[in-house]
Amino acid sequence: MQNTKVLILAGGVGTRFWPISKQEKPKQFLDILGTGKSLLQECFDRYSEIVPANNIYVITNKNYKDLVLAQLPSLTESQVMSEPFGKNTAACIAYAAYKFTDENPNSTMIVAPSDHLIMDRAAFFASMKKAVNYAQNNDVLVTLGLKPHRPDTGYGYIQYSNQAVEEDIHEVVTFTEKPPLELAEKFIKSGDFLWNSGMFVWSCSSIIKSFNSFLPEMSLAFEGGNGAYNTAIEFEHISKVYSQISAISIDNGILEKAENTFVIPSSFGWSDLGTWKSVQENIDSVEGNHKINVDLHAIESENNLVVSSNHKLVVIQGVNDLFIIDSGDALLICKNTFDQGVKSITLDIKKKFNDKYN
Amino acid sequence: MQNTKVLILAGGVGTRFWPISKQEKPKQFLDILGTGKSLLQECFDRYSEIVPANNIYVITNKNYKDLVLAQLPSLTESQVMSEPFGKNTAACIAYAAYKFTDENPNSTMIVAPSDHLIMDRAAFFASMKKAVNYAQNNDVLVTLGLKPHRPDTGYGYIQYSNQAVEEDIHEVVTFTEKPPLELAEKFIKSGDFLWNSGMFVWSCSSIIKSFNSFLPEMSLAFEGGNGAYNTAIEFEHISKVYSQISAISIDNGILEKAENTFVIPSSFGWSDLGTWKSVQENIDSVEGNHKINVDLHAIESENNLVVSSNHKLVVIQGVNDLFIIDSGDALLICKNTFDQGVKSITLDIKKKFNDKYN
Repeated sequence: MQNTKVLILAGGVGTRFWPISKQEKPKQFLDILGTGKSLLQECFDRYSEIVPANNIYVITNKNYKDLVLAQLPSLTESQVMSEPFGKNTAACIAYAAYKFTDENPNSTMIVAPSDHLIMDRAAFFASMKKAVNYAQNNDVLVTLGLKPHRPDTGYGYIQYSNQAVEEDIHEVVTFTEKPPLELAEKFIKSGDFLWNSGMFVWSCSSIIKSFNSFLPEMSLAFEGGNGAYNTAIEFEHISKVYSQISAISIDNGILEKAENTFVIPSSFGWSDLGTWKSVQENIDSVEGNHKINVDLHAIESENNLVVSSNHKLVVIQGVNDLFIIDSGDALLICKNTFDQGVKSITLDIKKKFNDKYN
Repeated sequence: MQNTKVLILAGGVGTRFWPISKQEKPKQFLDILGTGKSLLQECFDRYSEIVPANNIYVITNKNYKDLVLAQLPSLTESQVMSEPFGKNTAACIAYAAYKFTDENPNSTMIVAPSDHLIMDRAAFFASMKKAVNYAQNNDVLVTLGLKPHRPDTGYGYIQYSNQAVEEDIHEVVTFTEKPPLELAEKFIKSGDFLWNSGMFVWSCSSIIKSFNSFLPEMSLAFEGGNGAYNTAIEFEHISKVYSQISAISIDNGILEKAENTFVIPSSFGWSDLGTWKSVQENIDSVEGNHKINVDLHAIESENNLVVSSNHKLVVIQGVNDLFIIDSGDALLICKNTFDQGVKSITLDIKKKFNDKYN
């Protein structure tokens, strides 16, 4: 993994995990599965096994910089890339591409979401190494795709060619955003679709070339700062750039348009931990219920997810299929079918209680 | 209300209000209705309107003495009667009868539970004044009985004679402990029954005479301390007495046997606040739910009681007929039909978590 740098995306605000995840401490900074480490720390540890720690960068909002340094004390300040405000993933990646190139024009970049779950590290490393190897030797944009095992409507899908260009490397046919259930079922049935993991690998030169083609105004803005990267005026430059560029995802801005996209079909026990439901699916049940960070006494109750941010005693009786999430100062109790509604709560309560709660 | 002393019974341990009410702070010390005052403080305030504050005594376990003095700072130490351990109500009342007599042999005693709700003070005072007046002038044991408006199986019942001996004073026919539903329904239908409020009025001389008749060993034990009451050695004496006497309620020990019991049929918006259900019945609903000390945002949810001991934001969705009770370090969620089961939780969790929780 020579010349390989990892860009960990840690800018999310995590409204879907209210009330545990809040603006001042989004999901990636939380030990949401009760493992003893935050998702960001888990992510960092994972990549530390395949690249030197000083090749791992975290990009996040400037307000979370101190939180990142506190959780990952081995990082230098230069490894925490501050955004003045969020501009979606294309901006993050362009920023990193120019910064990494400034240090080493032959850099390869792994783009890694900070808040996903990966259960099988060995399988993950195998896929990732193939991706890095292919990206280092070709002018390509490589993604990791997960073999889907249910018609999940919360994920994006990648259609891929059955013909491998080399072992496990397949051309991408289409990227599809979150589909309706009927379509998702068709995708699964066809066998030609993978879940889009949001993990990408490319050389900095290839991705910059793609920016030049598909988002040239973004290239131009970031390029102009040559000389600023990896110096004391980097943030000043970035602040100027961010005020000019548009907010667009790397998927919409580049991947859906590029013709040199490839995918590695993978299986490594992955979840984007997008909602409480996906958290529940990824922790074991105890006496019919799922719990994180609680002492639970359950009477006539099944299939509840009970979570506390401070270790807490919880007694439930006569309730089923609920999320019960306690953050100390706030408590959420909802049916697990309300999963997708959780993200709207933050706004609802802001309005209802006149900005008393954030 | 000359020579009238009030004995507030504040020795309960309140397991039916777990987790808000715990061993270290039982129900009577809590602002369980969210009024800004504990039930004990409400009780004291109520009686302060009809007797001088220095005639009001609180009897409780010695461990709660400081809590009583903190909540009622106008009390002197002598007005807080400490029990070394609980011995039921007969012991409390005998203790008070001898202590009050020592100060003034012509004392009349009002026995007042500390943790009940009384909504209509004027009606309550009217009934109470009649009771005191009758007890001061006759050798009688007077109780206040509430006109029942539903066949509640959580209350004791008093059958009374239709014939008044004087205005609103009726002879008691029988005392009945908590009846099964069918019997309670018959009681209501007959019109001859009242709820037993646990509020009693008698002269100290009359109740001592009754102890002599029905619990003579208790009389003897308490009497022996003459000289100790209202001195520095009172608690020493009481500790000795309590180790000798049996634990029995005033109802079982005396009232059910005595022939000079009278009742005043009353209506003053009363509840013994015996369970969360009775609390729910006594607070208004907001948008279909009941709440105490919470900011509540309820979505598709009805008839829940949501209580917090620290003011808290609670969001509920898709749940009905639940008790949701949060004490900061513990959380109870149960169907409101589990009302009577709450008191067993304390023991269950002691066992389940090896005495980690009390």
